[in-house]
Amino acid sequence: MNEVNRNVLLEEITKAVFEELQKQQLITINDWKNKYVPISVSARHIHLEQEHVDILFGKGYQLTKYRDISQPGQYACNETVTIKGPRGMIENVRVLYPIRKQTQVEVAESDARRLGIHPPVRESGDLKGSAPITVIGPKGVVNLEEGCIIADRHIHMTPEDAKRFGVKNGQKVSVEISGPKGGIMHNVTIRVKDTYALDMHIDVDDANAFGLKGNEFGKIIP
Amino acid sequence: MNEVNRNVLLEEITKAVFEELQKQQLITINDWKNKYVPISVSARHIHLEQEHVDILFGKGYQLTKYRDISQPGQYACNETVTIKGPRGMIENVRVLYPIRKQTQVEVAESDARRLGIHPPVRESGDLKGSAPITVIGPKGVVNLEEGCIIADRHIHMTPEDAKRFGVKNGQKVSVEISGPKGGIMHNVTIRVKDTYALDMHIDVDDANAFGLKGNEFGKIIP
Repeated sequence: MNEVNRNVLLEEITKAVFEELQKQQLITINDWKNKYVPISVSARHIHLEQEHVDILFGKGYQLTKYRDISQPGQYACNETVTIKGPRGMIENVRVLYPIRKQTQVEVAESDARRLGIHPPVRESGDLKGSAPITVIGPKGVVNLEEGCIIADRHIHMTPEDAKRFGVKNGQKVSVEISGPKGGIMHNVTIRVKDTYALDMHIDVDDANAFGLKGNEFGKIIP
Repeated sequence: MNEVNRNVLLEEITKAVFEELQKQQLITINDWKNKYVPISVSARHIHLEQEHVDILFGKGYQLTKYRDISQPGQYACNETVTIKGPRGMIENVRVLYPIRKQTQVEVAESDARRLGIHPPVRESGDLKGSAPITVIGPKGVVNLEEGCIIADRHIHMTPEDAKRFGVKNGQKVSVEISGPKGGIMHNVTIRVKDTYALDMHIDVDDANAFGLKGNEFGKIIP
């Protein structure tokens, strides 16, 4: 068994055992409960406002569910769009439900380079002065003057989670990652809401740089 | 002036001022001299053994210089190859001079995913059991049973630099990066040699994840 397969196997075993322990409510080790968060990798995606659904997919079009994502009530849609910048375009960018007040495109820096755009690192929803981008759907095109960002690293959690971790909504924490390309991510935003499920979201560049597949845990450093 | 332009301008000014201070030998702030290292981003590339130069480019072919790189005596060649894995191929992979004892392909995790291979994170030259890969040149093809790695993060320096930083050859240090996607990279290998120039080398995934263009400085944390 080579080094890579061994690591993959170890990760899978660790995850399975952890999930089983969670099910059986056997995890009492404070270090886990009070410090570690599961990590998910967010690929590039788009949140749409109603007007833009109408333009891109046709008036009155209803988005359809592809699969659930980690946050309750949100899902990835079957619908995708193409995004375009001055240098290039990227196809098959997944639309995420629900509808938002303002269309928001989330990319990684590697995507931004392909597109030839310079999106700022921002919290979701903070779009003022963010990068312009063109969105192309099967029925129409939307030229956004602003709306494209590199999403900040963030952790969704409930008020109970926040209490346990000793953190507050909006607080910036650091998160430590183990492994051969391990390290610490700074400027990770805590997002607290009753309806959230505990999950840290990073982009594909972070995942690749830190050697993460999206089934690992990170350690919160307040 | 928007946020991005402001950051780019600030970086450029900081770099220019720092270089001028170095020229004038005016930098006496210990924090800079004893802790900070310049960072370069290594794109995917290949080091070739002589036999493979002969196969890929023709018997007796001499590699030609494209441009110097940060380490004295080493340079990027005009010659490029295509690398191929089970899932895909990547063209225009730069050959680096000088000739090595064993051919070595260095990619980032994002490249590895495109190719469909699983290279380990390794120090340069440590190729035993590393990933297989196919290399295609204008005159021939080489199927490597091993030779492809994700290069470890590392810092080249002279013995004088090592003394000043208080580190030793082979030591693993951490390096802190500032900025909105800042953080700390662990497992950064110190490489000491008389002929080295002080420079930290990271791959493209690290650069994208930490928001680095390759003209910044990192802070060594022993």
